[in-house]
Amino acid sequence: MPDIHDLTRQLHQKNESKIVMLVADGLGGLPISAGGKTELETARTPNMDALAVRGVQGGSIPVFPGIAPGSGPGHLGLFGYDPIQYQIGRGALEATGINFDLQPGDIAARCNFCTLDPLGNISDRRAGRIPTEESAPLAESLNAVRIPGIDVFVKPVKEHRFVVVFRGPGLVGEVDDTDPQATGVPPLAPRARNAASVRTAEVAADFIRQATTLLKGQAKANGMTMRGFAARPALPSYEEVYGLRAAAIAVYPMYKGLAQLVGMTNLGAAKTLGDQIQLLSAHWNDYDFFFIHFKYTDSTGEDGNFDEKVKRIEELDAAIPSIMKLNPTVMIVTGDHSTPSYLRSHSWHPVPTLLVSDCCRPDRCTAFSESDSVTGGLGQFEAKYLMPIALSNAGRMGKFGA
Amino acid sequence: MPDIHDLTRQLHQKNESKIVMLVADGLGGLPISAGGKTELETARTPNMDALAVRGVQGGSIPVFPGIAPGSGPGHLGLFGYDPIQYQIGRGALEATGINFDLQPGDIAARCNFCTLDPLGNISDRRAGRIPTEESAPLAESLNAVRIPGIDVFVKPVKEHRFVVVFRGPGLVGEVDDTDPQATGVPPLAPRARNAASVRTAEVAADFIRQATTLLKGQAKANGMTMRGFAARPALPSYEEVYGLRAAAIAVYPMYKGLAQLVGMTNLGAAKTLGDQIQLLSAHWNDYDFFFIHFKYTDSTGEDGNFDEKVKRIEELDAAIPSIMKLNPTVMIVTGDHSTPSYLRSHSWHPVPTLLVSDCCRPDRCTAFSESDSVTGGLGQFEAKYLMPIALSNAGRMGKFGA
Repeated sequence: MPDIHDLTRQLHQKNESKIVMLVADGLGGLPISAGGKTELETARTPNMDALAVRGVQGGSIPVFPGIAPGSGPGHLGLFGYDPIQYQIGRGALEATGINFDLQPGDIAARCNFCTLDPLGNISDRRAGRIPTEESAPLAESLNAVRIPGIDVFVKPVKEHRFVVVFRGPGLVGEVDDTDPQATGVPPLAPRARNAASVRTAEVAADFIRQATTLLKGQAKANGMTMRGFAARPALPSYEEVYGLRAAAIAVYPMYKGLAQLVGMTNLGAAKTLGDQIQLLSAHWNDYDFFFIHFKYTDSTGEDGNFDEKVKRIEELDAAIPSIMKLNPTVMIVTGDHSTPSYLRSHSWHPVPTLLVSDCCRPDRCTAFSESDSVTGGLGQFEAKYLMPIALSNAGRMGKFGA
Repeated sequence: MPDIHDLTRQLHQKNESKIVMLVADGLGGLPISAGGKTELETARTPNMDALAVRGVQGGSIPVFPGIAPGSGPGHLGLFGYDPIQYQIGRGALEATGINFDLQPGDIAARCNFCTLDPLGNISDRRAGRIPTEESAPLAESLNAVRIPGIDVFVKPVKEHRFVVVFRGPGLVGEVDDTDPQATGVPPLAPRARNAASVRTAEVAADFIRQATTLLKGQAKANGMTMRGFAARPALPSYEEVYGLRAAAIAVYPMYKGLAQLVGMTNLGAAKTLGDQIQLLSAHWNDYDFFFIHFKYTDSTGEDGNFDEKVKRIEELDAAIPSIMKLNPTVMIVTGDHSTPSYLRSHSWHPVPTLLVSDCCRPDRCTAFSESDSVTGGLGQFEAKYLMPIALSNAGRMGKFGA
């Protein structure tokens, strides 16, 4: 497997170009009945179709053929990081998902409040699915834990879930889960899987001890478990591997977190696509690369709501002219994976991906769709190759070898 | 290169789905004259064309572009085993080819009867291409060889060829061939290439000594050589890597042997395609995955018989409805490689491959052929990805990462 970044590090060059990557989460779809059209094929998308005439399209394979990715590997692929080489541990992903600024060396774990019976055995692994209004202040209260030499950060997530991050020297995340995945037994002790992780296991044990004291007397959430201990993945930055000053314009914390892991700067606090376009316009001169994340093509697919996904695609299409008005050197429309309403889940199908530049070598496609992308000039390609293609279209890559 | 099985092991899940992989050996072809059609394009295939309308097709690349594979790597690729990573040693392939039940630790070698002159030099490396009627009983007679602590199995193959398998503790197959590839010189002594293989070399030398005594007085076959010492390749099973109870329905021993190497159960003793379909139907409830092998698209191609290959494709097409009547969740028609009559040999050309499921994302193709597969939704893909695609279409794969 070629290491893409060995080449981009060596070959990238700087210029005044602007690259926009518009990610419609879960963009690809399926017909809901035999002989029918997909969501994207059903939607009225005059602006994307106009780009299809000028541009080149293809099918992006998120990981490898047949593999449906989560949001983490889906986005890492689009960002040009091999999603198998760079796996984000569960704790780190959970911290990323609430946009916690995880630092190199930090160890994050996903935690659950649980209910312990008088003997100390777990009677409910999710503390009766305690509502967030009750659990969030409880999680915040655990920031009172003090461990010598270690900074402890506790952040609420939702219902019974929260995140703990340990920061300090010599922490390694190879520690077993304390959740026994059963009731009627006590939580397990955190156990190091190697010598380097012993300190982390001790810190976790200390945290659990103090937390359990603080939670004493709570009716539902009088105990806790920890899972998925993980360090921040060591991802080289966009600046380092591509020479790009990169910005992310996302609404949801998970995507802000993923962007931050590769060194993008998160802009503003957009709540709508309109906000996002305004931020893009306002910061147009400050960055070389803009990642814009649009969530609703995925969430409607997950809901199995074909018609609503069609509407969301049309909403996105309507935003295209305001982006094109900024005259990006390279404009990309893609998705991190497919989320067909028919399947109500992420899927393995290639994602229609469109790229427009003055030197993209347009294909014969006249619309942007799954079916068109099959015969498009980008062919079917692993997502991780999209960034080198974008850089070259932006005139930002020198040639390899003489 | 991602290890497919690392992911499938982790992600596979079980359900009630059924996957059928119909392998038309050597399916892909070529026109025999400029502007002409291939065998598959010439054949009348209404049933496969009907599947093409409902399904998705593409070109399967057996190993990598430009590489024509033998039956071993061709099938391993289709089964999802990287054919470069998993190479089957010649002795093991020969044993597999006669469907010998090779066990882990066994060492197999391909043997030739040869003719020795009175000085012990080889005068004919193939014993005058002794006919099978004469050689088979001679090979069987060598089962009289006794080696302490070792089970010896001698199996006839064809003409001058036979297989020897040694079974016992501590055998490793790194032993040089004894065939000097020349006449006028004696056979070489079996020589170990490392310390671990010394015992195997001694066993082989003992076998040759006793065999030569037993063959004394034979006019043609009074000596023997051994080549391609090899252990059974360590292939993880379908059950382990895919969670599939897999069955093979083949007529020829080579394909039964290959299926057995990946842990498939060989069903029955079919002699015709009709027998094979009957077995499929009879065992439909007992397995999750069925590999059906059809040989004649390859053998007619090897014979350079374009018209006969066309007929064999039509014969296969006629069997499709009886398979579809069973209502497989995923139906695949493919080949392990191309065998164009024009070339009279295996070739490197991508193999037309068709997959039908309720969520396959149909393409615009309306016929199944080499030319259609070029514009199909599966694109051109390495054969090893067909299994993950099949599993996902069957709902048997979870998503990768969160």
